[in-house]
Amino acid sequence: MRRPCIITLLTDFGNQDAYVGIMKGVIAGITPLANIIDISHNIPPQDILSGAYLLATSYKYFPKGTIHVAVVDPSVGSQRDIICVDTRDYLFLVPNNGLLSLIVSEEKTKNIIRVTNSKYFLPSPSNTFHGRDIFAPVAAHLSLGIKPQQLGVRIDQLDQLDIPKPGFNKKGQLEGRIIYIDRFGNLITNIKREHLEQHLLNLVIPHTPPQSSLKKGGLRGTYQGEDKRGLFLHKTIKTTVGRKKIVGLCKTYTDVKTREPLVLFGSAGFLEVSVNQGNAREYFRVDRGNKIMVEMGSY
Amino acid sequence: MRRPCIITLLTDFGNQDAYVGIMKGVIAGITPLANIIDISHNIPPQDILSGAYLLATSYKYFPKGTIHVAVVDPSVGSQRDIICVDTRDYLFLVPNNGLLSLIVSEEKTKNIIRVTNSKYFLPSPSNTFHGRDIFAPVAAHLSLGIKPQQLGVRIDQLDQLDIPKPGFNKKGQLEGRIIYIDRFGNLITNIKREHLEQHLLNLVIPHTPPQSSLKKGGLRGTYQGEDKRGLFLHKTIKTTVGRKKIVGLCKTYTDVKTREPLVLFGSAGFLEVSVNQGNAREYFRVDRGNKIMVEMGSY
Amino acid sequence: MRRPCIITLLTDFGNQDAYVGIMKGVIAGITPLANIIDISHNIPPQDILSGAYLLATSYKYFPKGTIHVAVVDPSVGSQRDIICVDTRDYLFLVPNNGLLSLIVSEEKTKNIIRVTNSKYFLPSPSNTFHGRDIFAPVAAHLSLGIKPQQLGVRIDQLDQLDIPKPGFNKKGQLEGRIIYIDRFGNLITNIKREHLEQHLLNLVIPHTPPQSSLKKGGLRGTYQGEDKRGLFLHKTIKTTVGRKKIVGLCKTYTDVKTREPLVLFGSAGFLEVSVNQGNAREYFRVDRGNKIMVEMGSY
Repeated sequence: MRRPCIITLLTDFGNQDAYVGIMKGVIAGITPLANIIDISHNIPPQDILSGAYLLATSYKYFPKGTIHVAVVDPSVGSQRDIICVDTRDYLFLVPNNGLLSLIVSEEKTKNIIRVTNSKYFLPSPSNTFHGRDIFAPVAAHLSLGIKPQQLGVRIDQLDQLDIPKPGFNKKGQLEGRIIYIDRFGNLITNIKREHLEQHLLNLVIPHTPPQSSLKKGGLRGTYQGEDKRGLFLHKTIKTTVGRKKIVGLCKTYTDVKTREPLVLFGSAGFLEVSVNQGNAREYFRVDRGNKIMVEMGSY
Repeated sequence: MRRPCIITLLTDFGNQDAYVGIMKGVIAGITPLANIIDISHNIPPQDILSGAYLLATSYKYFPKGTIHVAVVDPSVGSQRDIICVDTRDYLFLVPNNGLLSLIVSEEKTKNIIRVTNSKYFLPSPSNTFHGRDIFAPVAAHLSLGIKPQQLGVRIDQLDQLDIPKPGFNKKGQLEGRIIYIDRFGNLITNIKREHLEQHLLNLVIPHTPPQSSLKKGGLRGTYQGEDKRGLFLHKTIKTTVGRKKIVGLCKTYTDVKTREPLVLFGSAGFLEVSVNQGNAREYFRVDRGNKIMVEMGSY
Repeated sequence: MRRPCIITLLTDFGNQDAYVGIMKGVIAGITPLANIIDISHNIPPQDILSGAYLLATSYKYFPKGTIHVAVVDPSVGSQRDIICVDTRDYLFLVPNNGLLSLIVSEEKTKNIIRVTNSKYFLPSPSNTFHGRDIFAPVAAHLSLGIKPQQLGVRIDQLDQLDIPKPGFNKKGQLEGRIIYIDRFGNLITNIKREHLEQHLLNLVIPHTPPQSSLKKGGLRGTYQGEDKRGLFLHKTIKTTVGRKKIVGLCKTYTDVKTREPLVLFGSAGFLEVSVNQGNAREYFRVDRGNKIMVEMGSY
């Protein structure tokens, strides 16, 4: 038997209505053996950035050949394109509105096809539910083996969100932003490990004090960087969230006491501010888009 | 291999508890190859009308032979019947409480069977969880090929909800009601395209002004009806929701500016009041059951 | 074809983020034919007791050979063990933190294996998302037929929650506690049928009045026990919840009028306080952990 193809669904349709079930019905009518896996349907309505974040942090955990369908589509029915993007390992079927913004830097696109061939749509597609009338049947046909090129013509333009990148502010701090807050209230930033390493190299090495002057204890984590010389071993970071500061970098939530805040690199590789068995969003009273500042020093 | 049979589930069991998972476990124990698809489990508790709406707007997007199981069952354990309804293309397994009210007008029933044959139930069924003890195992056995007639005897009576139909009020307006509000806050009414066309014919044709007197611009949409003569081309509708009025009929949400209200025929064929990238329920401060008035005119 | 193995998932990951979808992607990459069934992902964050309750009330409705994976794991990344517990009919893969507390009394464990063999993990597991990096791939490999013993070494210690048991208070009442509140607001207690039967035997038989003195009518249910002699036929129970009392024991919700409270044994076998088509949590203004008192008598 042919290995069943996986189709993932990521939408802002919620779990209250029948919209997701209807898409699955359409898919199953065309390709009964497809294995449909939900990534999430609780993207806040029309929130493309959250969709982009969840897609970018999940797509590569699926087997090669998976068809990723994402429908967060505030401009449904307008002139925005639906595109099928072909990478080495995956197919993405999305509105051309930035949903792939966080993926294109790491996953090389081979082709971008504007989906226009109505042969693969439901008859008489509506103007308001392309998930049902276009995305679902096209994904099903892709899982049956049609080529992206059969869906329409190649285009060059992939729309991207203007997502802020971390940078240095006037005080010499690395300044990032909260780009996603998860169910547990964890504040996930746009700061990746390489930004912090760059920060270390830029900022800290020139000022490294002699080892003997470093304080011991009181630190909840130290940052070791990629440098093997041990120079940073007793250096640590200070993170500013709202008006509060957190010293140190942890490896896991339980490195601090229950209800205490911490900073770590989360499972998706981004710097994350958390509260052990608590909710950092409530603790810090911050929201998506707010700034997070990181600086290095000896404490 | 036999094409796997699809069983859909629509309940008010929510996603918090294990009730839905338990039903799936029971089904999988009897028919491991069944393809179970969730329509929704977040029907408000005991809200038969919402269940009826979601079932009616989704069932036909599933392939022929699908078994639709709906458990919104405020009278579980009482004398209410469980019925298996056989139509040309589908089987429905539901409590006889009105859940099929919006389907019977369009899907001709062949047989209605009162489900009583405990051979297909779990042993010692409880009085409070028929989803687990009756609906799930019966659906599984149906997917294995037993005939509805093996479940019990034919009955004639299909209970139906008393759902208001749109009609004309004293002012000559078409008066409908909000029958469902979706996750996006869209206000879905009981007014279908044919009601509006009927309204057009009754009300507008006699008063059609000469084309030259029609204002241009300022309209966000015009209604063209089925009439090919172009008579209504510059006519449009005015919809009253609460104390507010919306002029025109749109094709899709983005026909108006962001955060502006609009009226269109939604993907299920009902007249729908929306706010582009906003929430019409909050915008208009209305709720299910509230009236919506539509009238035709030149503006 | 080999019967597809079922893997169930029970987590506190919610439906908002991609965490559950990612786990399914990892599983599907290893064992594409596995049938993954969600029990629930909406356990309140870190609420092991709710997880234990839902697992205990659902696991046995799945076919033999099912692999039950539960990830409610406040100590992820710490020294807590991940264990694979082998019973006659099922495999459980859980953190060793009490999630099996309500199961071990009824399901005899054959082996408890501490899962340490990283050959079955994703490469470079994170410290914060063992669901993705350990639980998912290990479950997938188990479904392919590896033995629990291949995952690590046997241990003896199964951590258990300290769950209160019902007992008699000074007034001679059976005193239990609310251990779970479901979506409908039903108050599920730790009182099982056998506790009430024991209570009956201890308390009621000595005081059984002559049948002729029993009042008739006004009772919403009588408790018949296992005793065939009919002695208890006209006895009933009085249940105290907060400051309110409920007389009688019902068989199903509709034994009382709409919006009236009742007591019954729920579908999982626990004494449950409900409101017919209402919400007992709101009606009684109680919460999990609150006491419920039951006494027998003639009324």
